Amino acid sequence: MSRPPLPPRVTVVEVGPRDGLQNETVQVSTATKIAFVEALAAAGLPVVEIAAFVNPARVPQMADAIDVARGIAKQPGTRYTALVPNLRGLAAAYDAGMTEIAIVVAASETFSQRNINQTVDASLTAYASVVHDARAEGMRVRGYLSTAFGCPFEGDVPQARVVELTERLLSMGVFEVAVSDTIGVATPGEVADMVEAMSARVPVGAIALHLHDTRGTALANVLAALEAGVSTFDASAGGLGGCPFAPGAAGNLSTEDLIYMLQGLGIETGVDLDAVVRASRLIAASIGHPLPSRYLKAVSGSDPR
Amino acid sequence: MSRPPLPPRVTVVEVGPRDGLQNETVQVSTATKIAFVEALAAAGLPVVEIAAFVNPARVPQMADAIDVARGIAKQPGTRYTALVPNLRGLAAAYDAGMTEIAIVVAASETFSQRNINQTVDASLTAYASVVHDARAEGMRVRGYLSTAFGCPFEGDVPQARVVELTERLLSMGVFEVAVSDTIGVATPGEVADMVEAMSARVPVGAIALHLHDTRGTALANVLAALEAGVSTFDASAGGLGGCPFAPGAAGNLSTEDLIYMLQGLGIETGVDLDAVVRASRLIAASIGHPLPSRYLKAVSGSDPR
Repeated sequence: MSRPPLPPRVTVVEVGPRDGLQNETVQVSTATKIAFVEALAAAGLPVVEIAAFVNPARVPQMADAIDVARGIAKQPGTRYTALVPNLRGLAAAYDAGMTEIAIVVAASETFSQRNINQTVDASLTAYASVVHDARAEGMRVRGYLSTAFGCPFEGDVPQARVVELTERLLSMGVFEVAVSDTIGVATPGEVADMVEAMSARVPVGAIALHLHDTRGTALANVLAALEAGVSTFDASAGGLGGCPFAPGAAGNLSTEDLIYMLQGLGIETGVDLDAVVRASRLIAASIGHPLPSRYLKAVSGSDPR
Repeated sequence: MSRPPLPPRVTVVEVGPRDGLQNETVQVSTATKIAFVEALAAAGLPVVEIAAFVNPARVPQMADAIDVARGIAKQPGTRYTALVPNLRGLAAAYDAGMTEIAIVVAASETFSQRNINQTVDASLTAYASVVHDARAEGMRVRGYLSTAFGCPFEGDVPQARVVELTERLLSMGVFEVAVSDTIGVATPGEVADMVEAMSARVPVGAIALHLHDTRGTALANVLAALEAGVSTFDASAGGLGGCPFAPGAAGNLSTEDLIYMLQGLGIETGVDLDAVVRASRLIAASIGHPLPSRYLKAVSGSDPR
């Protein structure tokens, strides 16, 4: 039996400073956030999502997004990106010197309406202006497609809907869609099926996977996606972020666990695993609880901080 | 690209009451152990390893092995097995009514000598009598091959050595070899390579995998092994057991995480996932700390007990 070839190189998108931190209740200082981002870039992570330019009343952890963005000593080889929910956020990101942003559209209608009080179609229309204006300023735009493998309210989300929304995001001008398992329910067959269905319609190089490890399946899903040709994966240092729907449970796939597996598979990432562990320890000291990364715990003994 | 076919049905060997509990420091009552085993069998797990007939001075948690074995209300469809280190253990297991046992041989010379003060060859010679006598009494014998993917003292273990020892165990009369990633270092390519190398020499149906999730790779390794044709996997309810080499880190692959993934892949196991969760909660209440299973945490909120 022949095994599917795997991509020789993978791009890991580090989302800890944004998707990780915004789910943490302890307010982290601006200086610590900057040191965290700088440590992640120094570890060789090629893309770091540093903040969200959102309403500080809704997400207090991101209130200092401009200061974080301006405070980072940027490395030439690293891409820095930030989440932007609307034109006001885009303006703030632009003022802060960002050259890349990300937008989020939900695949589930109920999730969209409960989360941002907009239908999916209305959010796509609103984002069309954001993408247009951002690109007019020379910025690159990444799209997240959330709840692509399941919704906490609706349950299953139809694959055809996810494929259609991915096409619409790409046709709007995003360079890549991070297909997101927001609640961590996906299993490898679903991931392989989804990537195959998408690959029939869009270039596989435009597909990234944003996986959560809530039920322990994230790395198995990465393996299935690698076998289907995907070569861009999101991850969060230490597994920072938890799961907003189940306190104490795991959320984002841990960067360390991902890099450990990719190294074992002989896949190049350019990332120094020990340096990621140091970045995780730096942020763990500020958030008041152990981080869920299995690898981090294995190398840290009983206290992953 | 065609995807490798997966086995339609998988046998999950539940090792929580033995490999799980023996790594727990809190002494669990005999009544609780019996209730735990009965709950696991009631959940549909086809094989439950209930105890180890070992020197109680070395493993106090297993001192009541005979009482556990005699106390269980056995289900007709369930296989009950127990670890046996020598002829004295075999006699105790036989007296306790066991009809299936398991033996452990290390793939790493240093691990064998440090753990049981015997060379690998000497342990194989000693076990030959155990296997012979057990089979003469009509008992089935399973073999564990520990440190097959890495040793805490030696590091890498040569694949050829693991294949050779698997053949020797099978030729001694064990019906199945549980190839064990004792320290949880394996990644999916190594697992696929190992299974392919073994399949050239022994029937793939005689290969089981005993994986630890210490670095988060266990389910990805299961996926790689499924693709290579393996259909028997060990797991521990709740991930009970931890890792003796890194306190606080994960040890055994969690039964819940495994069943969740297998269900998603459409693979039959005959196991009721909710009933496994109830069994895990039963034992978690007795051991004084949360269990590491991701799935268990996801369905339990902040306190997996």
